[in-house]
Amino acid sequence: MFDFLKKDNGLNEIYKLDMKSVNNIRGLSIDMIKEANSGHPGICLGAASIIYTLFKKHMNLYLDDLDFISRDRFILSAGHGAPLLYSCLYMLNLLSLDDLKKLRKLNSKTPGHPEYLKTPLVEMTTGPLGQGVATSVGIALSEAYLKQKTKGVIDYYTYVLCSDGDLQEGVSYEALALAGTLKLNKLILLYDYNRVTLDNNLEVSSCENIKKRFESINFQVLEATDEVNSIDYCINLAKKSPIPTIIIVKTTIGAFSKNAGKNIVHGKVLDDDDIISIKEKLSLHQTPFTISHDVVEDFYEVIKKRGDSYYQNYLKKVAKLEDKTFLEKLVNHDNTYSLDGLLIEGGKSLRDLSGEILNYIAKNDDLVIGGSADLSSSCRTNLESETFSSTNYSGRNIYFGVREHAMSCILNGMALCRLRPFGSTFLTFSDYMKPGIRMSAMMNLPVLYIFTHDSILVGEDGSTHHPIEQLTSLEVIPNLKVYRPFDLNELIGSYQDIMKNKNPSALVLPRNNDKISNLTKTTGVVDGIYLVKDTDSDDYIYLISHGEELGLTLDVSFLLEEKGIHTKVLSAPCFKNIKEHIKIRLKDKPCIAITLGSPYYFYPLTNNVIGINAFSESGSKEELLSHFKFTKELLESKILAILERLEK
Amino acid sequence: MFDFLKKDNGLNEIYKLDMKSVNNIRGLSIDMIKEANSGHPGICLGAASIIYTLFKKHMNLYLDDLDFISRDRFILSAGHGAPLLYSCLYMLNLLSLDDLKKLRKLNSKTPGHPEYLKTPLVEMTTGPLGQGVATSVGIALSEAYLKQKTKGVIDYYTYVLCSDGDLQEGVSYEALALAGTLKLNKLILLYDYNRVTLDNNLEVSSCENIKKRFESINFQVLEATDEVNSIDYCINLAKKSPIPTIIIVKTTIGAFSKNAGKNIVHGKVLDDDDIISIKEKLSLHQTPFTISHDVVEDFYEVIKKRGDSYYQNYLKKVAKLEDKTFLEKLVNHDNTYSLDGLLIEGGKSLRDLSGEILNYIAKNDDLVIGGSADLSSSCRTNLESETFSSTNYSGRNIYFGVREHAMSCILNGMALCRLRPFGSTFLTFSDYMKPGIRMSAMMNLPVLYIFTHDSILVGEDGSTHHPIEQLTSLEVIPNLKVYRPFDLNELIGSYQDIMKNKNPSALVLPRNNDKISNLTKTTGVVDGIYLVKDTDSDDYIYLISHGEELGLTLDVSFLLEEKGIHTKVLSAPCFKNIKEHIKIRLKDKPCIAITLGSPYYFYPLTNNVIGINAFSESGSKEELLSHFKFTKELLESKILAILERLEK
Repeated sequence: MFDFLKKDNGLNEIYKLDMKSVNNIRGLSIDMIKEANSGHPGICLGAASIIYTLFKKHMNLYLDDLDFISRDRFILSAGHGAPLLYSCLYMLNLLSLDDLKKLRKLNSKTPGHPEYLKTPLVEMTTGPLGQGVATSVGIALSEAYLKQKTKGVIDYYTYVLCSDGDLQEGVSYEALALAGTLKLNKLILLYDYNRVTLDNNLEVSSCENIKKRFESINFQVLEATDEVNSIDYCINLAKKSPIPTIIIVKTTIGAFSKNAGKNIVHGKVLDDDDIISIKEKLSLHQTPFTISHDVVEDFYEVIKKRGDSYYQNYLKKVAKLEDKTFLEKLVNHDNTYSLDGLLIEGGKSLRDLSGEILNYIAKNDDLVIGGSADLSSSCRTNLESETFSSTNYSGRNIYFGVREHAMSCILNGMALCRLRPFGSTFLTFSDYMKPGIRMSAMMNLPVLYIFTHDSILVGEDGSTHHPIEQLTSLEVIPNLKVYRPFDLNELIGSYQDIMKNKNPSALVLPRNNDKISNLTKTTGVVDGIYLVKDTDSDDYIYLISHGEELGLTLDVSFLLEEKGIHTKVLSAPCFKNIKEHIKIRLKDKPCIAITLGSPYYFYPLTNNVIGINAFSESGSKEELLSHFKFTKELLESKILAILERLEK
Repeated sequence: MFDFLKKDNGLNEIYKLDMKSVNNIRGLSIDMIKEANSGHPGICLGAASIIYTLFKKHMNLYLDDLDFISRDRFILSAGHGAPLLYSCLYMLNLLSLDDLKKLRKLNSKTPGHPEYLKTPLVEMTTGPLGQGVATSVGIALSEAYLKQKTKGVIDYYTYVLCSDGDLQEGVSYEALALAGTLKLNKLILLYDYNRVTLDNNLEVSSCENIKKRFESINFQVLEATDEVNSIDYCINLAKKSPIPTIIIVKTTIGAFSKNAGKNIVHGKVLDDDDIISIKEKLSLHQTPFTISHDVVEDFYEVIKKRGDSYYQNYLKKVAKLEDKTFLEKLVNHDNTYSLDGLLIEGGKSLRDLSGEILNYIAKNDDLVIGGSADLSSSCRTNLESETFSSTNYSGRNIYFGVREHAMSCILNGMALCRLRPFGSTFLTFSDYMKPGIRMSAMMNLPVLYIFTHDSILVGEDGSTHHPIEQLTSLEVIPNLKVYRPFDLNELIGSYQDIMKNKNPSALVLPRNNDKISNLTKTTGVVDGIYLVKDTDSDDYIYLISHGEELGLTLDVSFLLEEKGIHTKVLSAPCFKNIKEHIKIRLKDKPCIAITLGSPYYFYPLTNNVIGINAFSESGSKEELLSHFKFTKELLESKILAILERLEK
């Protein structure tokens, strides 16, 4: 397995230095893990030659500006291999030895898994398997788009180091199938094929013919040993491919450890004897964190020099670019959106109106690009543009296929490349995308999720298509702002807020609603909650609602007024915008919320919630309103019952 | 495309009747959709010959007992094709014409998508794409296990009708890759390959070579036209295969409609002219819901006769079976679980103790079988049994691979076959499984999810591995019971409740906790919330908590007592068990909840929640407790601040 060690005498100097460098990365990584007393030595010993070869021989980075727009991207999808990446960053003088010693400590630059914005050159947060691979497709897709838009000025490769586990996750299959279809040829997967997962050998859970699988989705498949030259040779081939490439690198998990090739070496700190023995085998200093100067110097110099020249070449291309508007907007993060000139009329469903607003924004800003998981015609998210396809990378309508989870990850990748992406599906299928949405929120990316068909009022399609708990599930995600407008005014207010957001947004829309009210306000969205119907009386109750239910709630409030019960009706289109003191003020009076979903959503405001705590049924909108007792008369009775209980 | 129509003169009688039957199914289906004024005519016109051939020529059903344990299973993964299935059920006398006319109406037996327990022979609820395919793998896996356990008495095929969209979903890839690995050769996919999805032609989002893809995951791949004989021939071949089979049936979406082959025919009701023209082409009566007697008679007689003989054969096998214990338990739904003889001691982590209890239950009940998404060693869910593999179908440890979503669907399939399945991963990765968990809950299946590593106290792995909002996301799913025990007592109580549940359960456990308290009670779990520390004073506050945080909460309560603040401490291990009147009683006194996750979880009880509303960080347990201000001293200050605010 380690035949190359025997060949040592015949190696030329470069080859020797490569070997030494790889081994130094191994040594540094296991030292970090030992120091942290937790981590994953298996991949660090196994895949060091992959990351080394990639950085040393290929990655184009401009070290004076790490944010350089046309830098090559590297995604460590197998996030548990973080020490490998941190070792390289140390050799690039981007992390200190002290940083390495703080691996997995609070507030360090070296968290347990790579975290976006915490560490230089960490392109995204990884850890949950599959997400890195899928997000990379978004990064590669962005490159194709940006390259078109800048006439070749932006022109980078997206490299991914992925593991067996990454490729078992369905989301990687979804995203890569799309990458193959779109011929994203600058996406290059480096597959750490060690055939061992945490629990067992891979063969217990997978007998897949990886070569065939990837050929079936239009990937070039290359196979390499874990020697630097072999990997280097394959990367060179991959860079010339007209379709995306996977390089299957046969590695040994925990190579050189006494447990090499076994699953137990995946995630357990190595014992001292093992470390001593590994370092002996690899001719490394026994003193922890000792790394050869020549290795560091060579690594830095080569990458620095190549990057500088790459950057100069970029500048030349920029100079030749006639219209620099798009590029400058991108480089300067110049996103000032306005709906000022928008001309729009009601009388259509909110999803139709949303489509019009989206198109208005997109027309004025070509950073806006997106698509749907096969529901653009239902969600009304088609742009007046062409289809993004392998023959037209300037199209702005992406057909993600019935692949919700991949869509969310790809949107994240696009936002990481400074685009303003959106994606759509039915609210109930937001479940499929939860892990991707969580990553949007964790990285605080301005992704716009458009979820239509937002309640049981979808009607006949039945329980599987009716969201109940989804709105709450989204709301509880930190950083994600959820909007549920009632009418055109609130829809405009939502879009105004969304386009200013630095964080992800979920715009939740009904299938049908075409109400427009003179009670609502565009500005109500920024406040999160606001008064839509007042009363002169001092003796009143609050009714709160949102979305399509607000109409019902207003109807009920008039019924109640007839009975002498005075009401103030509040609309709550965006919970995360509600100020704390407003919540407290609501405690003054009886407060009842009405929602066609889980009552949890309103619990921060009141415990008196008329909601739905069960799965829905197949039936017409009218049948369901009556089945769930949401007609105005039945709602009135429920409210009266609550008031009676509260008086006790 | 429709060449066979021209060959009509030379056809023999059987062939003619087959054609007539297929066309009658088409006619009935479009009549239903017309009557309902919503639905999906595309698949009904396109895939009628597939469902007809399967039922008429292959399905072994015992019509006198639809629950017959060894019946062949049919899963309509493309649930929007429901009218096709309902047509067949009508011809089997299991639905009436009146039922068909009530398609998509409330409380009918014919909901918009097939729903489990609402309609005879509907094996599972389908609609969200991919779920049907993945769940079928669980049904086929169960067959392999049950066949072993009953020495061949139980011995059925699992047939699935799936669409392009089903196969785009990552969950189908995940599950089928496992099916291939496990050589579940009695799983037969009938793929309605019409190359059109809702939004567009398939080629826009997929260029996949389906044959190669399926060969890569160890499937036999057969290709058929949409003629009955061609499909029949392939099913016969599939039944003899040593590995699972996919039959790619080339169909035309909306065949015979003026919009045949176009995406617009997928989900829109056909107009009257189109229906008239289709019926003319297919020689069908123009009067809606008219179906030929000979078609119905033949369909019923053939299936009835084959099924009866199949059942007699089953009875013969039963008679020869020496030990009938297992079979009888299965047939009689005889699941009486008891932990009475359990001998167990504390001093270990709760996940270790959970493993011991799980093994105790499994030892006494071989309906208990399960596994992990590659984390059995971390979640401690390995049974003292062998690995379930293609060479050992009696093993009870299933290695699902890093495929959480497929795991949840496969568990559903197993529960549908009367097993008591369990599956494990980290709580944070429950996100990946949400759509499957929702289906467990919607079908009310007794699946046990074991989620360990349940809070930020996981430590160094960092933000991606630390659940924050997950517990709430699970709790808001109707029917799903979430357990978060503090110690061994509550763990035992949880298992006692879980094993009695008819619905799904999520058992949420910490990574470390080894506390054992003499304050806790096994029976507290059934009450959902109960007193663990009382006070003699009449002037007191409530502190509520759960899981590992309960220890902290008790510590804080003692600090508060020292300051003269009397506390009653409540443990809330299972929210869905809490009675309404208890919630109300808590309003009497100041009530503060403490949780290491989203505060929403406790909002049904109190709005004074000390929780976490942000993503976590990488760091040690101790660092994180202090970072999030959850040390006892800081908690005490926070409680004092809340009390001060409440007094105002």
